[in-house]
Amino acid sequence: MTDNGASYGLIDNGAVAVRGGRIAWIGASDAIPADHADLETEQLDGRLVTPALIDCHTHIVAGGNRANEFEMRLNGASYEEVARAGGGIVSTVTATRAASEDELLAAALPRVDQLIGEGVSVVEVKSGYGLDVETELRMLRVARRIEQTRNIRVRTSFLGAHAIPPEYKDRPDAYIGEVCIPALEQAAAEGLADAVDGFCESIAFTPEQISRVFEAARRLGLPVKLHAEQLTDQGGAKLAASYGALSVDHLEYVGEDGVAAMKDAGSVAVMLPGAFYTLRETQLPPIDLFRKHSLPMAVATDCNPGSSPLSSLLTSMNMACTLFRMTPEEVLAGATRIAAQALGLSDVGMIKPGFRADLAVWNVESPAELAYRIAFNPLQRRIMASKSSKET
Amino acid sequence: MTDNGASYGLIDNGAVAVRGGRIAWIGASDAIPADHADLETEQLDGRLVTPALIDCHTHIVAGGNRANEFEMRLNGASYEEVARAGGGIVSTVTATRAASEDELLAAALPRVDQLIGEGVSVVEVKSGYGLDVETELRMLRVARRIEQTRNIRVRTSFLGAHAIPPEYKDRPDAYIGEVCIPALEQAAAEGLADAVDGFCESIAFTPEQISRVFEAARRLGLPVKLHAEQLTDQGGAKLAASYGALSVDHLEYVGEDGVAAMKDAGSVAVMLPGAFYTLRETQLPPIDLFRKHSLPMAVATDCNPGSSPLSSLLTSMNMACTLFRMTPEEVLAGATRIAAQALGLSDVGMIKPGFRADLAVWNVESPAELAYRIAFNPLQRRIMASKSSKET
Ligand SMILES: [Zn+2]
Ligand SMILES: [Zn+2]
Repeated sequence: MTDNGASYGLIDNGAVAVRGGRIAWIGASDAIPADHADLETEQLDGRLVTPALIDCHTHIVAGGNRANEFEMRLNGASYEEVARAGGGIVSTVTATRAASEDELLAAALPRVDQLIGEGVSVVEVKSGYGLDVETELRMLRVARRIEQTRNIRVRTSFLGAHAIPPEYKDRPDAYIGEVCIPALEQAAAEGLADAVDGFCESIAFTPEQISRVFEAARRLGLPVKLHAEQLTDQGGAKLAASYGALSVDHLEYVGEDGVAAMKDAGSVAVMLPGAFYTLRETQLPPIDLFRKHSLPMAVATDCNPGSSPLSSLLTSMNMACTLFRMTPEEVLAGATRIAAQALGLSDVGMIKPGFRADLAVWNVESPAELAYRIAFNPLQRRIMASKSSKET
Repeated sequence: MTDNGASYGLIDNGAVAVRGGRIAWIGASDAIPADHADLETEQLDGRLVTPALIDCHTHIVAGGNRANEFEMRLNGASYEEVARAGGGIVSTVTATRAASEDELLAAALPRVDQLIGEGVSVVEVKSGYGLDVETELRMLRVARRIEQTRNIRVRTSFLGAHAIPPEYKDRPDAYIGEVCIPALEQAAAEGLADAVDGFCESIAFTPEQISRVFEAARRLGLPVKLHAEQLTDQGGAKLAASYGALSVDHLEYVGEDGVAAMKDAGSVAVMLPGAFYTLRETQLPPIDLFRKHSLPMAVATDCNPGSSPLSSLLTSMNMACTLFRMTPEEVLAGATRIAAQALGLSDVGMIKPGFRADLAVWNVESPAELAYRIAFNPLQRRIMASKSSKET
């Protein structure tokens, strides 16, 4: 995924030298420098090697599931009936609040394991189903425990401004001041948050409310990102860009001013086709506008129990091609190099000297095959040299 | 999946007695008859048990893949440019003709293994990428070898009338008479075909041409099925029904007359949402019309390299819910009981005395979860008691 002139930055008959968990050299296998002759060698038999994948947007820690609601809707229940039956995000909040740290971890691990099985080395994990101080912090502690329990790196995002909890119905400003910002401050104090996220939408928080959260993030020295322009254009992309956001996510309804602001700010556009698919949306994100402005595009699962019960990054890549018309090369960059950028990480996502030697080895003939098949996993093995004490 | 009054035919705290690879009894675990007290027991710890799944429509034996064409299209190539580069079904025909039996088998097995890993016990496999006598027969021999190589049952369909090969361009009638019917006769003579299929469409064969093939099938005593009404309404459903077709597949454009004819004939409507998704079609199959006529609906992968590179039946079930608005109960029946009916099998697809004891055990709390998650496999284990010499 480096810019070497070839499509995908692909090297035919390539070789990689790894020392101390880092890439020491990459090039043609008949040009390995003599100073790496001491290394043990391993043949990968002509397989494709890519950077390990990175899922830069998930809500993978969550209580319960929403299969019942999925079934009710398909049996013809209205949104009101589902809501009366305790459905919607409130059901996930209720289940998450009721779950212990151990229970939340146990529920997340099968989803994490699917990502690991697809060659993922870094997963972003958000809070946002607690909506009270204690549960928001518990979610972030569970996210940290994923990293201790499994051979994967975790980046956390504090997402207190995800929804308005029932006890603050019609009082979003009070929620921001009394719960969200205090929880964020405590998360920062405990080192639980790597970034701060929010949901700027007609059904969630206004740009003004998000600004208050972002001001707190700035005070705490934390980078921000934002769920914006998923259902309507609220100006969230411009707002996030004005805070130098790492990424703005969803973006189906963003306009050219938002795109230009993101480009100037160095923000990544994160595409979440799993939610688009599940919600059967029809407004496509403006991919051509992103291309026109050379705005980097990432692709992520948005793994969550409601709008994207998906923990397959490869399937997200297929959906980004099939539904959003991104190219296989764009989606592979979007799940490696650009996903790293969306997380503010500068040592993963490319096979480049100095970068972590976290690699995925695939049983495919061409990189396009990774996105071409639907829900098929051709991973041969994942190499996590950067964390080799827990080698897979 | 039996009709016991409960949704899904579900039995809470159920038990199944198995003797000689067949279901001997099913009921509540506190009501096991004394005459089964001699059986060894195994606890499944509250997991969900369903009939093993059945994929009743696949083109899983095929040469090559079409990732290159997928990529060309997403990079903006026109259909003409793709065709000039050797793309389209012709590329699969060329690759299939060039492949040996062993190569075709090796290419199919990873896809078969994905189905097995999802609890599938029966897979239908079509010919149709040879379009010459020799290669059509080779594809069917590979299909039979799948059954010998893996612990799965295979039902074959002869699909010589799939497309018009380049050497018969503009001479479809000559192709039917000189290649398709002779190949079918030879396949029947060698016991390679369990059924006869065709593709009735403006871009494939006319009802008259399909009739010639179906007449040959009738002479040979083979049941028929048909790809029909996928892109336009050609009257294929009515034609197939007039031959007592086991199933008619795709059906996006079928009208009420076709649905009524299928109902009268006892034909199953096979839903293939993977192709709908990949081709980004907008015309939904008339699910409400099927329901109105109580027409049984199956769900299958349509696994093929062009329009549905999908070998996950669970993902097809999710797509049938999300895209076609089928219910989780309909799609589970469609991948078990109704799929068996679509293949003319009367001893699989239900957990019922006398039926084969081919079961799937799932790590889920409710059957709706099987369709709710996207591209996630909660199979705990598959039980193939009917073929226990090769127990998984
Ligand atoms: Zn999200
Ligand atoms: Zn087909």
